[in-house]
Order: sequence, then C-alpha cells, then structure tokens
Amino acid sequence: VPLTAFVGATVIDGHGGQPIEHATVLVEDGRFLAVGSAASTPVPSDAEVIDLVGRYLLPGLMDANVHLLPWPSWGYIEFLARYEDRFDAVITEAAQLALASGFTTVFDTMGPLDSLLTVRDRINEGQVTGSRMFVAGNIVGFRAVFTTPEAIASASLAFQQRVNARFEAGGGPDLCLLHPRELAAQMSHYVSQGVDFVKYGATGDGEPVNSQIGQAAVLRFSPDQQRAIVEAVHAAGKTVQTHTTSAESLHLAVCVGNDLGQHASMTGRSRMYDETLERMVATGYSCGTQWAPLTQEQTERVAAGDFSGPQESGLDNIENAVRLIRAGVPQLLSTDAGTVDPDVAKDDEAGRSSMLGEAEFATMRAMVDRGMTPMQVVQAATANIARAYRVDDELGSIAPGKRADLVALDRDPLANVENMRTVSLVVKDGLVIDRSALPSSPLLTSAAATSPGRIRTS
Amino acid sequence: VPLTAFVGATVIDGHGGQPIEHATVLVEDGRFLAVGSAASTPVPSDAEVIDLVGRYLLPGLMDANVHLLPWPSWGYIEFLARYEDRFDAVITEAAQLALASGFTTVFDTMGPLDSLLTVRDRINEGQVTGSRMFVAGNIVGFRAVFTTPEAIASASLAFQQRVNARFEAGGGPDLCLLHPRELAAQMSHYVSQGVDFVKYGATGDGEPVNSQIGQAAVLRFSPDQQRAIVEAVHAAGKTVQTHTTSAESLHLAVCVGNDLGQHASMTGRSRMYDETLERMVATGYSCGTQWAPLTQEQTERVAAGDFSGPQESGLDNIENAVRLIRAGVPQLLSTDAGTVDPDVAKDDEAGRSSMLGEAEFATMRAMVDRGMTPMQVVQAATANIARAYRVDDELGSIAPGKRADLVALDRDPLANVENMRTVSLVVKDGLVIDRSALPSSPLLTSAAATSPGRIRTS
Amino acid sequence: VPLTAFVGATVIDGHGGQPIEHATVLVEDGRFLAVGSAASTPVPSDAEVIDLVGRYLLPGLMDANVHLLPWPSWGYIEFLARYEDRFDAVITEAAQLALASGFTTVFDTMGPLDSLLTVRDRINEGQVTGSRMFVAGNIVGFRAVFTTPEAIASASLAFQQRVNARFEAGGGPDLCLLHPRELAAQMSHYVSQGVDFVKYGATGDGEPVNSQIGQAAVLRFSPDQQRAIVEAVHAAGKTVQTHTTSAESLHLAVCVGNDLGQHASMTGRSRMYDETLERMVATGYSCGTQWAPLTQEQTERVAAGDFSGPQESGLDNIENAVRLIRAGVPQLLSTDAGTVDPDVAKDDEAGRSSMLGEAEFATMRAMVDRGMTPMQVVQAATANIARAYRVDDELGSIAPGKRADLVALDRDPLANVENMRTVSLVVKDGLVIDRSALPSSPLLTSAAATSPGRIRTS
Amino acid sequence: VPLTAFVGATVIDGHGGQPIEHATVLVEDGRFLAVGSAASTPVPSDAEVIDLVGRYLLPGLMDANVHLLPWPSWGYIEFLARYEDRFDAVITEAAQLALASGFTTVFDTMGPLDSLLTVRDRINEGQVTGSRMFVAGNIVGFRAVFTTPEAIASASLAFQQRVNARFEAGGGPDLCLLHPRELAAQMSHYVSQGVDFVKYGATGDGEPVNSQIGQAAVLRFSPDQQRAIVEAVHAAGKTVQTHTTSAESLHLAVCVGNDLGQHASMTGRSRMYDETLERMVATGYSCGTQWAPLTQEQTERVAAGDFSGPQESGLDNIENAVRLIRAGVPQLLSTDAGTVDPDVAKDDEAGRSSMLGEAEFATMRAMVDRGMTPMQVVQAATANIARAYRVDDELGSIAPGKRADLVALDRDPLANVENMRTVSLVVKDGLVIDRSALPSSPLLTSAAATSPGRIRTS
Repeated sequence: VPLTAFVGATVIDGHGGQPIEHATVLVEDGRFLAVGSAASTPVPSDAEVIDLVGRYLLPGLMDANVHLLPWPSWGYIEFLARYEDRFDAVITEAAQLALASGFTTVFDTMGPLDSLLTVRDRINEGQVTGSRMFVAGNIVGFRAVFTTPEAIASASLAFQQRVNARFEAGGGPDLCLLHPRELAAQMSHYVSQGVDFVKYGATGDGEPVNSQIGQAAVLRFSPDQQRAIVEAVHAAGKTVQTHTTSAESLHLAVCVGNDLGQHASMTGRSRMYDETLERMVATGYSCGTQWAPLTQEQTERVAAGDFSGPQESGLDNIENAVRLIRAGVPQLLSTDAGTVDPDVAKDDEAGRSSMLGEAEFATMRAMVDRGMTPMQVVQAATANIARAYRVDDELGSIAPGKRADLVALDRDPLANVENMRTVSLVVKDGLVIDRSALPSSPLLTSAAATSPGRIRTS
Repeated sequence: VPLTAFVGATVIDGHGGQPIEHATVLVEDGRFLAVGSAASTPVPSDAEVIDLVGRYLLPGLMDANVHLLPWPSWGYIEFLARYEDRFDAVITEAAQLALASGFTTVFDTMGPLDSLLTVRDRINEGQVTGSRMFVAGNIVGFRAVFTTPEAIASASLAFQQRVNARFEAGGGPDLCLLHPRELAAQMSHYVSQGVDFVKYGATGDGEPVNSQIGQAAVLRFSPDQQRAIVEAVHAAGKTVQTHTTSAESLHLAVCVGNDLGQHASMTGRSRMYDETLERMVATGYSCGTQWAPLTQEQTERVAAGDFSGPQESGLDNIENAVRLIRAGVPQLLSTDAGTVDPDVAKDDEAGRSSMLGEAEFATMRAMVDRGMTPMQVVQAATANIARAYRVDDELGSIAPGKRADLVALDRDPLANVENMRTVSLVVKDGLVIDRSALPSSPLLTSAAATSPGRIRTS
Repeated sequence: VPLTAFVGATVIDGHGGQPIEHATVLVEDGRFLAVGSAASTPVPSDAEVIDLVGRYLLPGLMDANVHLLPWPSWGYIEFLARYEDRFDAVITEAAQLALASGFTTVFDTMGPLDSLLTVRDRINEGQVTGSRMFVAGNIVGFRAVFTTPEAIASASLAFQQRVNARFEAGGGPDLCLLHPRELAAQMSHYVSQGVDFVKYGATGDGEPVNSQIGQAAVLRFSPDQQRAIVEAVHAAGKTVQTHTTSAESLHLAVCVGNDLGQHASMTGRSRMYDETLERMVATGYSCGTQWAPLTQEQTERVAAGDFSGPQESGLDNIENAVRLIRAGVPQLLSTDAGTVDPDVAKDDEAGRSSMLGEAEFATMRAMVDRGMTPMQVVQAATANIARAYRVDDELGSIAPGKRADLVALDRDPLANVENMRTVSLVVKDGLVIDRSALPSSPLLTSAAATSPGRIRTS
Repeated sequence: VPLTAFVGATVIDGHGGQPIEHATVLVEDGRFLAVGSAASTPVPSDAEVIDLVGRYLLPGLMDANVHLLPWPSWGYIEFLARYEDRFDAVITEAAQLALASGFTTVFDTMGPLDSLLTVRDRINEGQVTGSRMFVAGNIVGFRAVFTTPEAIASASLAFQQRVNARFEAGGGPDLCLLHPRELAAQMSHYVSQGVDFVKYGATGDGEPVNSQIGQAAVLRFSPDQQRAIVEAVHAAGKTVQTHTTSAESLHLAVCVGNDLGQHASMTGRSRMYDETLERMVATGYSCGTQWAPLTQEQTERVAAGDFSGPQESGLDNIENAVRLIRAGVPQLLSTDAGTVDPDVAKDDEAGRSSMLGEAEFATMRAMVDRGMTPMQVVQAATANIARAYRVDDELGSIAPGKRADLVALDRDPLANVENMRTVSLVVKDGLVIDRSALPSSPLLTSAAATSPGRIRTS
C-alpha cells in the first residue's frame, strides 16, 4: 500500500479552521492518514514525497449543482439528435473537465438517468477517470426537453417520446397529478433505480405564461404532495432538494422538510419572507448559490445596503442573496455548469458562461461581491456541500479518515478569491490526476476550441 | 298594502317537502304570509286572487353561477370593444332574460365589478326590472380577458389595461404573489367594494401549457394563501367559493374552509379522492353542478355503474358526478349561463349552449340522467342554493316571512324534469312579472333571433 | 353670383411659375376668373375684397395618398368593432381635418369602399364640409384587415367576413388567381362601383415570411395580369397605380402602363434599376413620395453623394429618392396620412406620425432634405398631383377656369419649406372655410387631444 | 470484351413500338448491339446467354423526380442533425434502393448539391453500385430547410446556416431579388458547379400564408427573370424545369421556354388554361406526373367526364391530369420518392408513401386510372423521360448503341399495369445487378424494416 506525503503547502481545511502553514498531509490507500504542521507530522521514510512549498492545499472542490449533459444544449433538437447515442460520452467528457478544473466531486441535479448512472458507476469502479458523481436524474415533476410548442412541432413523436423517457425516468409531470399516497409509492420506486439524491420541482419552470403570473409562481405539488415526496425519499436514506421560484414556494419548501434548495434567492416579483430566513436557520437548511459577479457600482450599492436599483435578471436577486449571507444560511457553490455544444455556444451566451471550470470561479467572485469572505467561499465549495448532502463523513475536508481529494493552488485564495483559479495540482482518492490527459476523448470541447467559453485545462 | 292569493296550484316548497295539492299561497308586502291547503288557509276577502288550478307552484328558481356579461363573448376583442361603454345594458338584458325564464335570483361569479354592482343596485332599488343579482366580481387571482398571446397581440395596450382593470377590480393575478398576511389585507379591501360573495381561482384556468400537466393541475394559491382568503372573506360576513380543476386542488379547497365549490366534478386526469367526498359530507360543502345531458347509451352505462368509457370533456366527469350524488353532497344548479353576441354565436357552439333559460333546463335534465330525482333537482335550483349562499332566511323556499318569489309551471315537474321548462308565470317579491316586456331594450338577443340558442321568453 | 377678390398676396401658382407679388385673384362661381398683378387685374366694384397683404397664396394643397379611415388603426380589432357602424363618421372627420389643414383635395388609396363613396358624395353635394375626395377602395388583390394569424384567431368569423367584404368590395385576393381575361372583366365590374381611380398590389404586403425573401419580393399579379388590369381601368377612363416593394416589381409596374406608383423608392434589398428611371422619364410616370426628414448627418451625407450608411427603414430608401429627384421624375406628396384611434396612438408611433396635417408637412421637409427646392415641393403638393391623376383641367393650380381652391400662408414657403405650416386661410370652390368649426363632430381627434400627434386646427 | 445475349423474352422497347416476342437482345461493352426476333438476331457463339423465356424485357426504368436525401425527413431537425455527416451514405442507400427496384436512372430535383455530386460521381466511376444519377441541387430560389418559424426557433443559427448553405449551394432565395442580367450571371455560376440540369421555383412553396392567396399563387421570379434563367441554363447546354403551383405560373413557365415542368396538374384554386395545353403541345413541353391512384368511384367519374366532385388534395388535380393526357402532352413518371427516416415514418404518412420502389408503381397505377394505356405508362417511365431530359441518345429505350439498361418482369405489364411490380432482373450498363446485396450498408431502410412503407428488394 503506497503512502504519499504532500509537504510544504499552507493547508486550508474546508471547515474554516485556521490555515496551517508548512503543513504535511499524509495519504494512505486513498484516504487521509494525518494532517498537521511539519513539526507535528513526521513523514514516514517509505512515503512518496510531493513538494508543495509556496502553494495552498484545499480539499477537492465540489459543485452542488451541475448538468454534465449540458442543459443549454438540451433546448436544441439538433444536440439531442446528434448525441442521442452518445450521452455517455458527453457526460464522461464533462466529468473529466470538472476533475481537471479541480472539482473532484459534482452533484448532477438533472439529466438522463440511464447515462448518468452508467458513467457514475464506471468512474467509481475505476474504468474511467472523472469527477466523483452523485446523480438525481430528473427534476421530479418536470418535463426536461421538448417544452416549447416550437420544439414539439419540430421533432417526430417517436424521437420525443424516446428522449423524454430517458430524461424523466418515471419522474415526469404525471407525478404532479397523483394523490400524496400514490406519489410516495412512485417516489420509492423512482429512488430504487439507483439515484443518490432527489430534486423535485416545487414550482413551474420559470417561463411566463402569457401576461399572467406565469409558471414561476404556481405550485406543481401541493404541500401535502411535497411532504409525501420528502418522507419517501428520506425513508430511502437519501437527501431531497427543490427547485423553487417564488417567495411562497420557497417558504413551503423549507417547511416541508427539504434538506436544501437550489437558487433560493430566486423569488421572482416577491421578496423572500423574513420567516423563511428564520426557519432556514432554525432547521439547518442550505442554499445552492447561483449568482453572477457584480459591477463596481453594484458592489458599492450592496455595501451601502441600497437595493433600490434593478436586480439582476433570472436566478439572481441581490438583496435576497445578501440577506441569506447575513442570516448565516450555509451557501453551496451550485452553478448549473456543464459543457456546451459548439453550435449552441455561438448562439447562446448562457451556454458559454455555464462552462464547467469557468462558471464555478465566476460564482466564487460573485459570492465575495455580495459579502462572503474568501474563507466562506472555500467552505461553500467544500465542507458546506458535503454536509448538506450528508456525505461529510467521507468528503469535503482534509481530515484523517476521509477520502483524499485535494487541490493545490499557486496563489493564496484567502488573499483574493480570484486565486481560486490557480489550480495546479488535483488529487482524487489519493492519486494525482494527469490533467493534461483530460478529457480523454474530446467531443464537444475540442470542437469548441475557438469559442470564448473554452475551458483551459492547465 | 295589497294582499295576493295564489290559489289552486300544487305547491312544491323547495325543501323537498310533500307537495300540497290545491294549495293557497298568501303574499303580502312582497313576502309570503301563509302557505297551506285551501282548507287550512282561508283567502281574505280583500285579497287579489290569482287562479292557478292545474298548475304547479315552486319557489322562484335560482342559478348559482351565471355570467351576465357572457363569458364566451369575452374571448372576442370585438365584443369587448363594441360593448365597452354598454356593459351595464348587456348585464341588464341578461338579468331580464333570467327573470323571464323563471330565475328570480342569480349569482354572478365573474364579470366587470363596476357594471355588475350598478345593475344589481338598480334592480334592487326598483329602477329596473330583472333577476335579483348577487355578484362576486373577478375570480380572484385570474386574468379574465386577453389571456391568449393572440388576443394580447391584437389589441392596444391602453384598451387591454382599461378592460382588465374593470374585470379584475383589484383582485387579479398579482394577488397570487402575496404573502398570506398581505393577501388577507388585500381581500378585505376587495370585499369592501360591495361584492356579495367571493370566488377565487385555486388552480389555473384549465388551459394546457404545451404537453405538460397544464394550468389545470397547478396551484395558483398555496393552502396558506387560500386560508388567508377564506378567513378574510368570512370575517367580512361573506361566503367564499373556489374554481378547482384537479383532485388535489379540490381536496385542499374543501379543507381550507370554503363554503362551496364550482364544478367540483372537474378533476381532470385524476379521480376525485374518497376522503374529499367524506370531508364534503362532514363539513356541509355544496357543489355547483355543471353537467351535460347524457346519451341513452351513457345513461344505461351510468345505471350499470360502468364508467369505463370516455368521460365527457371539459367540466363534466360522469363518475365524479354520480359519486357526489350518491354521497349526498348538496348539488347546486350552476350553469355559467349568459347571453351571447350574435357574431360569436355563429362561431361558437359553447356560446349558444350557455344561453340563460336554456342552459339551466339542460342541466336539470343532466342531473336526472346521473341519478337525481326531479325533487332533488327542484331543491338544487332553489333551497340548496339559498342555503349554500347563506341567504336561506330570505330566499329559496315557499315559507311565511320569506321573499315571495314564485314560478308556476303548466305541467308536473316531478313527473318529468323536462316539465321544468313549462314556466307560465313568474312572481318576484310578490309581483307578477310581465314576461312579454322583457328584455326591455334587446341588444344581443334580438339580433340573435335566428340563432339556434335563442331564448323563447313566453 | 358673388365675386371675390383676394388681393395683396404673393401668388405661387403651383406650376413653378415666377411668383406674382401684390397679386389679385378673382373668383367667381367657385372658379378662378383672373390672376395677375394688381396693376393688370382690376378689382370689380361689386367684388368682396379679401385683403391678404403680406401673405402667400397657393393653390389648395393636395395629398396623393391618404387613408381617411386610418390604416394604423385597422390592425386593431377593437377599432374595427368600435367604429364598424360609424366608418362614415370617421372618414368625414378625417376629410374635415385635411381641409382645415389646407388640403382641399385628397386621394384615398385604400379603405372601405361603401363608406368612402358615401362621404365623397355627401361632400361633393354640399351636405357636409370636407376635403374633396377621390377614392380607390381596396388595393386590388390585397386583404386589408385580419391579415395576421393572431388577428384571425381573435375575432369571430362572421365579423371578419363582414369587415373584409367592406374593404375588398370585390377586389380582394381572389383576383390574383384569375386568368388575365377574367381579371379584366372583374376589374370593369370593380370600377363600375363608382371608384375614381384604381390601385393594385403588384407585390405582397411587405411582411416577411419566415426568413425567406418575404412577401415584399413576390409578384401577386403576373405582368400579363397587370396589363389586363391597366387596360380595363384605362378603358373605363380612370387612372391606375400600383403598390410595389421590389426593384423588379417596380420596373414591371412602369412597363405595363401604370400612370403612377406609390412609394417607388421602396425597393427592399435591391437597388432600383437604372433602366427603370429611364423608362419613368420616357413615359411620364409619377411617383408618390413618402419620406421622413433626415438628420443633419444624413443630410450632409446625401449632399456628398454618400449612401453607404444605413438606409432608413420601411418605405424610404434615401439613395433611390435622390436618384428619382435628380432624374426629374415628378414627385407627388403622398403620405398615407389619416387620423388615429387614441388607444392605438398610445401604442403606435407610426399611428401618431401619420396624422393628417402633420404627416404632409414632415414629408415636405423630407423632400428638401433629399434635394428638392421649396418650389418643387409646392408643385409636388399641387400641380404634379393633379396632372398625375389627370384632373389638371380642374385642379392643382391658380389659373382662370379652374376650381378656386386656395391656401394663404403667413410666411414665405420658398424661403423655408417649414413655412408651409403657416396656413392661415383655406378656400375651397371659392368659399372661405371656417376652420375653427372643423371637425364638426370630433370622434377620434377630440379624444386624442392629449396625444402628441394631435393636429392643431388653427 | 464480353458479349451477352438476353433471349426468349417479349421485348417492349420504351418507344411504344410493337412488342417483339421471343426476342434476342445482344449487349456488348455495356451497350446494346442488336435487338430483334430470335430469327433475325443470331446469338454469337461466344456470348453469355441469359434465358428469359416467358418474361418481359423493358428498358431500365427511370424516375424523373426523386429526392435521394428524403424530403419528408428534411422537415425534421433531428434528421438533419443525425445525418449531417452522413448525407453521402443516405443518398447512396437511396440510389441503391432505386436500382434494386428496377430504376436504373433517376433525376434528383432537390437536395444538398455537394453530397449529390459526390455520390453521382462515385457511381459513374464504378466505385459504388447504384442507380445512375442526374442531379439539380437546389430548386433555385427556394429555401429547402428551416422554412417554418418553429424550425427556425428550434435550431442553432450556426447549424441552420451550415445546412442551408449545403442545400442552396448559391441558388437560394436571394436570387429572386436579382436583376435579370445579374441573375443570368449567377445561374451560369450555379451550373458550373457540375449540375446536370436546373429546376427553379417559379412560384412559392405551396404553403398558405394566413387566409390570403398563399405562396402557391405568387411569382418568385418575374417572366423576365425566368427567361434569364432559362437562357443561361440553355447556354450551358443543360435542360431547365420549373416548380409551379398556379394556372398563371404554369402558363408563364411554358411560355418562357422551359423544357419540362413538375406536377403541372397542380394549379391550386384555378383551372389550367386551355391555351396552356395548346402551347405545351406546340412546344413539346413534357410534364412530371405525380398522381395518386383513384378509388373505384373516382375512376368511374373520370370515365364519365364528371369532375364535379372534390379533387384530390395537394399535387393532384384530376381534371387537369385527364386534360393533359387527352391533349397528348408527354407524361413523365415523377414521384418525389426517396427513403424515410424510421422515426419520421411513424409520424408521417407522406413519408411512408413516397418510398422509392413503391411510389413509382403506385403512380403507374394512377396513370392508368386517369386514362393512360399501360404502353403509355411504360413510355412515361422510359423514353419520355430520356427525351425530355435530352439524354435519349444514350438512355430510355432498347436500341443498338444505347446504354444497356434493362429490367425483366415476370408478368405482362401491358395486360395489367400492376405487373410492373414483378421486376425479377435488373441490368445496368450491361451488367446484371445483384439486387440481394442492395443496399450495401443499410442505414434508414433496415431500421424501417417493420414500417409499412418498407421496400421489398427481392
């Protein structure tokens, strides 16, 4: 059994503890054996020594919300048709990009379940190198693809049914019509397919319907139905989370016992309730954080407590975000990141800006802009996620017994959050990753080489 | 003070009591003074005697759900534009048609509040003859008109805003976005405008959105929000009812304390829950009934308890209807009836079949087809409605002290429900109505004279 | 028979002749009796003398292309429904606004024929005061209203058919399907309804169809069909003109023998052919001119012959306009002006800017911006139009024997074309118009009083 | 050089000549050496003898209008995306199906030019077995794909531009905007890319635009533009044909000098002009024939000259067809046939019914139903096509010197046109085709094996 010693770096443990300078981290059999100052942590003579003097060593980074089959491309029939037989390969490529970028663990919150399970298992079994995946399958209650009249009119029925079935995996919109009792039974079945956690759509999909209140403010599942989902998933030993898009739906989601919620700051035309914040704190609710960097002017306005100006569009409500931070609600780096089809990338700014390995660092910047410290950012990308997903016995910090996932940075992230980008070494399960070899079979990202959003993997 | 004696008819009292043959009904000052057999009820010598020998005397009929400004015509911009300055006149004409058809009291559950209040008050003050009106204004939470992208694209913004404001009267879709506390305050304000009762939209408007579950199965108001509405309206001393379109929303509506619900049998692709029926019975919930007559084959299948075949489309789920009847849930004649713009009538079968004075009698036939007795039908059109709307101290039956609203039929309605159509005398507040003079200023119905749905007023 | 002498003004005759200062214009029985210098033109002693010293006297102005039922409002179902029974009144109001603004003669090139004929005849018979109208009815081959899928979906079929029939008057899209021989017969019938001239749609309606070439570049009538129209209309003694929207269709329109063409500068993505200009000159073809004023920068670029920048959108191609002017093709003031529904005006900048009495003066400014002299502008608004429509024996200039239509301006129009706006006296058929009394029954324009496009009638 | 003798069959020569029983056909070096009765045509001793006693020997069949990249599948983005990199393979498969079905020569009138040229050349050079292809590329002036708003909204711009460019090959809708002189130049360039003939779109694409006359009745190219195309193509030594969809456009197409026209019977709501028929006869114009078999009732009505009933939809106007036949206008088998994507086939009846090897035989039946003799049908599928395309010196009949393309039938086609389906031997350029080996790499047709339209290749 090989033993490795990472020596000389400043260790930042993921839990917000005091950094340890000139630290020694011992790894054996894929797990941490010891962490401490050089003085207190002798390096065994048979250890392979990796010299990290001058660098900063963090737990392997995590993203609490990715779509390894890239969601901006799902909207394009051409993408679905071109890659229908190669979803596995697209997902593998994305998992490799994530790993090469320092993200040793990712949580995929929506995608075709069959291919996600296949790739997850291949990676876990060591057949393929890639980020460690936890997968949810569908956002329960949603139709993922072919959601517009235009798309429905532009593809054959057979193709739509085949692709919809792969995305929904038995957890599609029909579940919204079920009695809570029947819904619970259906959720038990859904979980039994092998998902690692469950996400359901408490509200519609955010698209306005005519000039009325829109899907964003209607409940797809009643509170009774939501409780049935939560209980069934918890009974199966999994965590459960929600997609919400209004103040009322967010409040309900917290009340019915969810473990965490994605993009909680997104409450549309309503303001997040004060009692929602209180309840989050009381119940230990965590929030996936999907924010964009601010302009200088916005940053100054935030510092002055002035939220009178226009909020950012879409997922991001600046005032809500600041309130969440100030209330101490644990934030999770949660980006919706993936790859992007090169054709789609030319069309779609959103597609480009959600590239894995770029979106995460932009979000870290956005966190600081809203008032988080760099140390809180590190926690949001490591220990907070592990705790929210209840995998903190294994992941999320540098501590003896846990899986030895590490990233080394060239520059101090606590001095400037932009230094999080200076990843120069990635270790997963104790093994140093050859980042230059990833992705092993480029499919989307090589073609995208000239696109602005192209990830730089070294 | 004049005193009138209606003598010789068979009296059917509205409550399901044993009919009184050769009865005498005494009316004084607009109210019933006495009701009984000729033997037990002497006719004072100064009474005006109206001879009804051979006829059948019932309480004035009621419709628990009309739209005096006709809803099928709202969908047409041309109707709104042509009559924008004449909504009062259109509503008056409809109230007169209702009265001429024997419906002495109607409950308008959606329409432009300003005009509805104006006409209601004119009738109540005796300035105009017409059916007694109770009005709700908007279905709270709904946008009534300009609901399709096509309509929105085809009218000026100024016109849309002006008409929307008249229909919504402060109770439009924005209310769905409010915190329950704010919603309660807004509802108190809404009620203070002079409405007689409140109806809110628990679910969407029944229109499918793409191929997904559609508006019909999403909640526009959470249970907490619904409770806030119900409590605010009850606190103002008014009844409150809902529009629901799914099994789950129907169940919630019963649980949150509504007094009655419209078209409860409409649960879309789900089956009404057994516990919903139980709770309706336990809480005295009444159901507005909007059914279509059955074919002979359907009637036989219903009698045999066979609900395997296709259900009727739209509002009507035959099995649910039969279950409601068998469980003893009080049914209310509730038709959505109104008049119809003649141009629209040529386009729109629904428009024609919802004509006041036709729709009600078709619905009565439909009630018998599903298993109600003719006596239950009479109750559904009189005492049940008065009780559900909490106006049974004044209306809904032939009993001393109540308002003297009567209809006389030429043939026995208990022998054949179709005989309900044989109305030959209408009395409101003790006064015999000159039906041949109604409507007094025909606007829509004269032009529609050649349309199949044309009401026959004598 | 009264005789009137307009004395002291500078007369500009409409044909480009040298202005006569201190002129005397004698009018008898509604026609000019004499025009000349005070010295050469003695005023009879029994004449009523109108002193115009210091002012400028021009022939009554003309607009070669108006829509008295305002076209921007046709697109709105609400307008059609609200005024369906009052088209005559809307047209009358517009004819009065035109007259009050100095336009004693207008040519209506599209609108509901029945109402246009009715109002034209009432004015000609002296029952109503208004601008002298010449009317075409439909643009032959076009559907005028209910042209979008949205509008078609938002109105009843009966209403659409009724309104379409009034606009098309037998000259609708079906004519495009006819054999030239049958088309000629149909045109003879169309003309026999009493139109003063004919306009047909050589190309589509300018709306793009998908991403392809669009309606603007397809021919609705083949050259053989166009020749059949032209010959049939000429045989009936009327002039014929076209709507064209491409270089090829414009060239064909000139070749088949049209008398004039509207918005000839509108050739879409193609450049007007040189041989088209040559042929216009050779055949005496006149062009309706619908241009917008230029910015200072554009004016300078035009002066420098630089047409490399962006052209104005829609009807106006600056280079084509300049080429037409330089080639000496007679230009006609031709504005599409009308009134505007006040609701529509709030929506629609185009509606506001096409107000009668405003659009014309803006177009005059635009003519000068492109290189026309003020004198040429006067001709474009008077004699050129009369000649193109072949009514120059009666109208278009101040000459003995012609109808005595006059406008007096306070300031010299030849010094600055903006002085055309200083109309302070309008004479039609020898009678001074009481402009303060127009419109006599304001319908659209009073309601529009606060709208930016509101015409100022004094 | 091998010499082959086909002996014993009844030869039907393609020109309508008297069949030769017990004939001998000698083939040398890929061409016919001699044809005649056994008595008059001795078989050289070194010839390979193929015994066809009891069979019927015809020239290789031809289809004057196919789409080897199947057009019903173009409408589906999924098809374009899935096969974008394999258009060559799809076209090859179709060319092999055509050959296996007896169609030794096909004329592709619309498809992606690059792939069509590639496959044509590979077949001609003997690298691949397949039907002899003549290709046109685009229907000049048309946009082939992404023609609906829905499709345009559902694919990335980059993908659309790439695919559109391959289909249009410089002959797209922009050409409609050109001056005839510039259009001629552009056509010379277009032809120089290697096309075998040219087809242009005289009218729109047959799709209705709103409720107006629709694309079907508007001209995309003026007569002058059409003449410019015809002259430029003729100058390059190629034939030129049109797509027309109205009576007027058909007449023009004949007048401007086209060699042939597709689906001439399709004149929409107008009746084909008598003078069009006369001119076709006078100028030797040939018509592509795309008809559907008739019902028994329709057949009887046609025989009785009764065309009062409903015409068939789409391409087929029965009365026009009968008039063309009776006037003696040469008819060409012209089917739009291709393969079909299996997903699309489930959606699309049209897709299934246009399968190569099925569509042709159905059309032959349709020809007889309208009054053609089986002998005329044989000519329509052989000599008429060769003559219209001006390749009759090489193809279309069994005559010495021509290319030795043959099909042998098991049963007499002159006795019953359905016997055309009994193809049991196919010879191209003198070589017997191994039909069981085609298609060599099934792509669409194997997957479609269970679809009703599946071709049976043996």
